[in-house]
Amino acid sequence: MRPLKRYIPQETARRLSLYLRSLKMLDQKKKAVASSGDITRFLNVSSVQFRKDLSYFGGFGKRGVGYEVRLLTKEIEKILGTDAVRRIALVGVGKLGSALLSYTGFPEFNLQIVAAFDADPDKIGKIKRGFKIESISRLREVIKKEGIETAILSVPVESAQKVAHELAKCGVRAILNFAPVNLTLPKDVFVSNVDMASELEGLIYKLKRSKV
Amino acid sequence: MRPLKRYIPQETARRLSLYLRSLKMLDQKKKAVASSGDITRFLNVSSVQFRKDLSYFGGFGKRGVGYEVRLLTKEIEKILGTDAVRRIALVGVGKLGSALLSYTGFPEFNLQIVAAFDADPDKIGKIKRGFKIESISRLREVIKKEGIETAILSVPVESAQKVAHELAKCGVRAILNFAPVNLTLPKDVFVSNVDMASELEGLIYKLKRSKV
Repeated sequence: MRPLKRYIPQETARRLSLYLRSLKMLDQKKKAVASSGDITRFLNVSSVQFRKDLSYFGGFGKRGVGYEVRLLTKEIEKILGTDAVRRIALVGVGKLGSALLSYTGFPEFNLQIVAAFDADPDKIGKIKRGFKIESISRLREVIKKEGIETAILSVPVESAQKVAHELAKCGVRAILNFAPVNLTLPKDVFVSNVDMASELEGLIYKLKRSKV
Repeated sequence: MRPLKRYIPQETARRLSLYLRSLKMLDQKKKAVASSGDITRFLNVSSVQFRKDLSYFGGFGKRGVGYEVRLLTKEIEKILGTDAVRRIALVGVGKLGSALLSYTGFPEFNLQIVAAFDADPDKIGKIKRGFKIESISRLREVIKKEGIETAILSVPVESAQKVAHELAKCGVRAILNFAPVNLTLPKDVFVSNVDMASELEGLIYKLKRSKV
């Protein structure tokens, strides 16, 4: 079934990601057909919500039969746009950037890091976790050459805005930002924030407060 | 100045984390005294907001002089509870867990991973990124022995709820959850979610949608 070209609420897209992960897990367990209950079991999402979410796209399951795991996986990947491999750049090979370079889970999202950049002359040209670190001065050149539209931003907080702006100027359209700062960018550049630092500190603060 | 024992809004706590990082950066640059403008420059937070946030605790700066960087750092750390080293456990040494074990930035938050757990017999007993991987069956024993109250949860989505519940039973009071699932836990257990996977997928989805 072809996805309807209509607006999907962000929360629905988020849940579709969850279903996708659940489906991949079921596939790993050699399950060919699954019920809505099987798919939502570990997600704290109800079967009703699941069916409602899928109904945005016309619905895929057969009543009383269930969902074909691989077929539904493919359909949701198409909807989410994760069906084609995307080449991404990682900018900022500090502590967090290095850990991200060592993260082997990106291919599961059909993401492939193809370039890593840093501004530190001591790092440029070195190999880190299998990636050759490029000078940030080559950002435009490499991004154009590699056809990169998506970037991971893991530079220090004081450079984040400047580098993000530069990425946008080079044609990057989506940034996964790990710097704890609200980036100001043109409207056609999408930003998602993963602020591990603030989440950690927020958690510790709640822990402390509970003991006061 | 002693922090007043009163409720601080979550958003304020979050901004305090940002100020802290900015202050540490200024200290690295050997700046002893800084203005509110210096501290907020790269944060997309106004000086007015900064002063308002500090006013919760009585205010620290001197008008026309500025803030003593190290003093303010210490005070904010005290407020946030990051002034003492916390021993944490990492549970789930898969792709993401391994990357997190290789992240060398935790000490900056006064966090120290002291134990890593997994359920996979092939991993148990092995050394990964300098950590010996313990069997998850030893969770209670090790957590008690090490006095651990905080855990990083990086297990697969289907085990997350069960393991989180187990952690809570062992006395863990704060969980940084990387599994893309909403955990249901007793009210006295704090959870922060870092859902890199969904953020990534959400970003790609927005990118795709913009081209339809």
